[in-house]
Amino acid sequence: MLQPILHVLNTQRIVLASGSPRRKQILGNIGLKFEVIPSTFEENLDKSQFSHPSEYVKETARLKTLEVAKRLKNDERVPDLIVGADTVVAMDKNIYEKPKDKEDAKRMLRGFSGRSHTVHTGVVLVSPLTSNIIKSGCVCDGFRVNIFHEATDVIMTDMSEEIISSYIETGEPMDKAGGYGIQAIGGTLVTGIKGDYFNVMGFPLHNFSKQLYNLYKEL
Amino acid sequence: MLQPILHVLNTQRIVLASGSPRRKQILGNIGLKFEVIPSTFEENLDKSQFSHPSEYVKETARLKTLEVAKRLKNDERVPDLIVGADTVVAMDKNIYEKPKDKEDAKRMLRGFSGRSHTVHTGVVLVSPLTSNIIKSGCVCDGFRVNIFHEATDVIMTDMSEEIISSYIETGEPMDKAGGYGIQAIGGTLVTGIKGDYFNVMGFPLHNFSKQLYNLYKEL
Repeated sequence: MLQPILHVLNTQRIVLASGSPRRKQILGNIGLKFEVIPSTFEENLDKSQFSHPSEYVKETARLKTLEVAKRLKNDERVPDLIVGADTVVAMDKNIYEKPKDKEDAKRMLRGFSGRSHTVHTGVVLVSPLTSNIIKSGCVCDGFRVNIFHEATDVIMTDMSEEIISSYIETGEPMDKAGGYGIQAIGGTLVTGIKGDYFNVMGFPLHNFSKQLYNLYKEL
Repeated sequence: MLQPILHVLNTQRIVLASGSPRRKQILGNIGLKFEVIPSTFEENLDKSQFSHPSEYVKETARLKTLEVAKRLKNDERVPDLIVGADTVVAMDKNIYEKPKDKEDAKRMLRGFSGRSHTVHTGVVLVSPLTSNIIKSGCVCDGFRVNIFHEATDVIMTDMSEEIISSYIETGEPMDKAGGYGIQAIGGTLVTGIKGDYFNVMGFPLHNFSKQLYNLYKEL
């Protein structure tokens, strides 16, 4: 849905404040031009201080994105738009990020087996106060900030210990929130989802496109 | 979930009886080794003769797959397993395949705008009577045949004429059932799905993996 505004978007300096190869791939696939400048913000917020996983991912994404915005604010060409995101998996009262090691991945996958969990992504759009892209909303640290959140339910198949162990041995789980990647081998373990598939990969493509369309269509 | 049987699968001659680049990509991503030999069966069954889209895709997939099986049955190494599939989009009482031209694609996308439709894929597994892979089920034309079906609901965003036209101009819709591709630009138009994402791309990965696991785990 960005085609009508792509000629404007492609005149902008857009920065993706994330090192995730999945996010880069999703945005690359829709024809958007952008640079990748990963955030150096240490993701260490105290989860117990947040009432809901959505609050946690929005705040982590906000801090990740603002770190990049501040770092680039004296560039010769200041970015027009900086996009950041954070993704976690939530089930019952627990939040799952990237597994620490194989045992941690195994523990997560055992928990998900045969039932449903939820993937939450917070997305943050940041633009300079001097630009007219984000016209309303909060100002943080001298930037205009637009924050949103997307949740997708994922139903996993019943997994035997053999299936879990042999999946972990593929190496796929280790750099992924919740210990699985839906886009490749992990996809065989997912019975179905409810919501945006790309959100499970780490970036809610439709919601992001809608927000961007609304910001740019009047420019 | 195929990791525990991948060492067996990779000793087999497996043929994908479909020219779809999406199906090839999905199966390639999970580490399966296979050849691509597209069916030459002309997809011209009379839709009005089927009580449900699921019956139509299963029958088209069966005929597509058997055409390849028959063509290869005198090969020096006869395939152990031939996999075929057919995908359509259904809404109300209509079945949508690949658009005939841009106007046809426009008509489909206008219809899907702001509401839900269903993607149906029929999958057919064929093996020789002499093999012990498919042990039960129907025999067709001298082959053992296993047939299943998967349905996924897709909710599309409200699309203006400008969004529809500019999407069609990308060229993405023309070779895809229902006139959109969820895996790239078309993904921006999809609010969410309910079911297997890969089924929307044309191949129900989880269901296929489960069937294959059950066929091969005892071998």
